[in-house]
Amino acid sequence: MAKFITIGERLSTTAPAVNKAFLERDEEPILKRAKQQLDAGAVYLDVNIGPAEGYGPDLMKWAVQLLQSHFDNVPLALDTANMAAIEAGISVYNREKGKPIVNSADAGSRIEYLDLAAANDAICIALCNAEGIAKDNDERMGYCQMLLERGMEHGMEAEDMWFDPLFLVVKGMQDKQMQVLEFIKMLSDMGLNSTGGLSNNSNGMPKTIRPIMDSALVAMAMMQGLTSAIVNPNDLRLMETIKSCDVFRGNTLYADSYLEI
Amino acid sequence: MAKFITIGERLSTTAPAVNKAFLERDEEPILKRAKQQLDAGAVYLDVNIGPAEGYGPDLMKWAVQLLQSHFDNVPLALDTANMAAIEAGISVYNREKGKPIVNSADAGSRIEYLDLAAANDAICIALCNAEGIAKDNDERMGYCQMLLERGMEHGMEAEDMWFDPLFLVVKGMQDKQMQVLEFIKMLSDMGLNSTGGLSNNSNGMPKTIRPIMDSALVAMAMMQGLTSAIVNPNDLRLMETIKSCDVFRGNTLYADSYLEI
Repeated sequence: MAKFITIGERLSTTAPAVNKAFLERDEEPILKRAKQQLDAGAVYLDVNIGPAEGYGPDLMKWAVQLLQSHFDNVPLALDTANMAAIEAGISVYNREKGKPIVNSADAGSRIEYLDLAAANDAICIALCNAEGIAKDNDERMGYCQMLLERGMEHGMEAEDMWFDPLFLVVKGMQDKQMQVLEFIKMLSDMGLNSTGGLSNNSNGMPKTIRPIMDSALVAMAMMQGLTSAIVNPNDLRLMETIKSCDVFRGNTLYADSYLEI
Repeated sequence: MAKFITIGERLSTTAPAVNKAFLERDEEPILKRAKQQLDAGAVYLDVNIGPAEGYGPDLMKWAVQLLQSHFDNVPLALDTANMAAIEAGISVYNREKGKPIVNSADAGSRIEYLDLAAANDAICIALCNAEGIAKDNDERMGYCQMLLERGMEHGMEAEDMWFDPLFLVVKGMQDKQMQVLEFIKMLSDMGLNSTGGLSNNSNGMPKTIRPIMDSALVAMAMMQGLTSAIVNPNDLRLMETIKSCDVFRGNTLYADSYLEI
């Protein structure tokens, strides 16, 4: 199997400092967070500019060019509710290190993000969800197959659709955790790529506990065949766990220095 | 599912200080290590007195009585190549907190340990291995079924046989790791209990890396349905991971204090 792909989540308007830097086109805080994530081993960087109505296309172009020019055409996930901004970002995107990722389509109101990815030869994160939380894996699989068919009708390769089971918060939905993990195995058995926002599981938990829960979950999910995740790459414990699971899965050859790479 | 069962491995003659204390019947170092393990959350304590030819029965009786009298009849795994010592230990063992574990039978020269466990209404760790390393899971499953049949013929309940896939060292056998994990899933799908010496995987690795590898592996193995393991309970990272996986598996109810229990 291929090495697990991490998508760094720290360039997001949900962080006030990042939001301010995006709005003011302030390069320094953006570049600093990007470098921290890449130094820690992130493969892709997510660029979440929020809803970004109106100014989204300009902002996304600026962010893509800023990051790719400073970090050797680092591959990016373009993340916003403004579809025009994603297209604008792709229009200036350099594919040397990997296709852009459209983050994200779902089987409900965001279905057209899949068409956008198809039209632009991009990877698409495809959430196996529509409105509300899927009640079981039959429902998730129904969405998955609908998205898969639609993507392929529009000319996408199956490998460019990264299916997201939607990780659920333990506090309140502890009884659904194994269901989500079983769904990852179903995706893997179908030969499909998968991803997701792992840290959803630990929302609302004490800060000291989150890396512990996130690490345990990523190992369980990698056992089930998860192929990538949207993570905080500066969570050392999490990254160590991912690298170790890649050793057990045979995705990287063990060496005593394997954590340093 | 039931909560994961940890068997503390630190009372072993492989540690020179423990070996000396056993030989000299020196209570203090034994009690200290036992307390450290129980305080860290170990459920069972393994009592490994080594080959212990001749003096084994006396030593095992002394150790069982010492530990159970000081720690409220703590349940124990009796671990030695001297079968008479295991029988002697069981003869003075108090079952209030759980049956004794015989550690261990295999499908080769140690097959009679299973008969010993059956004759004494004990739990038996049953290694799915004979001579050399099993070449694949068909061979492991053959041993498992042979042990299962023999135990049941001797009147054991299936749940009292804890099958051990034999965790293998990554350095040299990296390509066998997924096979071992798949075998745990096979045992789990059959409804069987399982255990094993997890830290085998990280033999020969730098000391700083071992807890990282062991934690990643225990999470992957718990995803596959592993029901217990022989571990160092004073490896905090490992114990945190086990407790977290028990939350995801639904074996313990999440509370912000779950790591403290």
